[in-house]
Amino acid sequence: MCMDRKERILQALKVYVVTDERDRGEELLPIIKQAVYGGATAIQLRRKKELGRKFVELGRAIAEFTKEHGVMFFVNDRVDVAALVDADGVHVGQDDISVVDARKLLGDKIIGVSAETVQEARQAELDGADYLGVGSIYPTVSKPDAGYTGLSGLADIAKSVSLPIVAIGGIGIHNAAEPMRHGAHGVAVVSAVMSAADPTEATRALRTIVDGYDTMRR
Amino acid sequence: MCMDRKERILQALKVYVVTDERDRGEELLPIIKQAVYGGATAIQLRRKKELGRKFVELGRAIAEFTKEHGVMFFVNDRVDVAALVDADGVHVGQDDISVVDARKLLGDKIIGVSAETVQEARQAELDGADYLGVGSIYPTVSKPDAGYTGLSGLADIAKSVSLPIVAIGGIGIHNAAEPMRHGAHGVAVVSAVMSAADPTEATRALRTIVDGYDTMRR
Repeated sequence: MCMDRKERILQALKVYVVTDERDRGEELLPIIKQAVYGGATAIQLRRKKELGRKFVELGRAIAEFTKEHGVMFFVNDRVDVAALVDADGVHVGQDDISVVDARKLLGDKIIGVSAETVQEARQAELDGADYLGVGSIYPTVSKPDAGYTGLSGLADIAKSVSLPIVAIGGIGIHNAAEPMRHGAHGVAVVSAVMSAADPTEATRALRTIVDGYDTMRR
Repeated sequence: MCMDRKERILQALKVYVVTDERDRGEELLPIIKQAVYGGATAIQLRRKKELGRKFVELGRAIAEFTKEHGVMFFVNDRVDVAALVDADGVHVGQDDISVVDARKLLGDKIIGVSAETVQEARQAELDGADYLGVGSIYPTVSKPDAGYTGLSGLADIAKSVSLPIVAIGGIGIHNAAEPMRHGAHGVAVVSAVMSAADPTEATRALRTIVDGYDTMRR
């Protein structure tokens, strides 16, 4: 990977905000805007039950805003939606379209992969992933079916691959420093921002914590 | 539309078998094979809850078989999956990715659209759809939330557009002749084949009915 690309990705992973599955998708954009004003470095649109038409519509609205603000935008799972809304990339889980297949459709867009174990992380690196979403770090309400990796699992993965890593799962202001100390280059959050009374302040607090670590030198 | 393309599509719409949503997707391929042996002219993989990895895997297995047998293969909704498995095209509903967007990603692949009303049918034609799936013709158990078009609605749509039309919704051997008499170029079925005791015989019986109408001259 050329260094410019990797540095851009490292920068984007610092405070990576993933949308929740609330019924009314149109409520997401105002919160995303607040997160960006608070210093979010990436937004991921994750909508497991959304149908294609609405997914594209939401994606276009978010892409327009994130481009204006120089924030990276990822679409979860739907490679077709990522391509149509010209997102910066896609994030795929182990049951979603594979990295190799996503690469066929997306060319040099950024592809992130969820990894729970060292084996999944190494495979993703071999397959050409650009970054890893590693977790769950803590128990989580947003995605109760996610496997548990924990801080020690995160540290093991960080030693095993050279890919940028964003930690995910149960992370909030009170516990965001720990994954940073265990090898993560940034933190991904869902409810810590999406359900915050003040998403701008919540994001700002997370950004302050993460900015205390010089992730570019890892 | 050039005539070769339209004729190929008219041929494909005669007995168009849509998969059901059974839990075990791997059970679909044996039934699809039996349907093809009975004369199915097209297969559509419709899996609303399937995740991407498995969807692609199923799609590749079906595409390999349908190509060998000269039967058209469509993927429902997921444009990315259609592209990856090199299906003949995609079928989209009114809430799925739009025809215009699907065309951007699929180029000259075939794009079918579900239409319940004359207005939806005309819009799909303007948007560049290649064929229409019109229904529900009869009440249906496979898709209880589908709108009701009926035979008279089908006849109205057939008079309003020049696109090939496959009728769908509650169609079986006992009632397949009616939509053919009301302007359809073929019939799409789910449970009539997917739940048949003998999918080959069920498909063959449908094919005999449809072959009694000269749809190429409409």
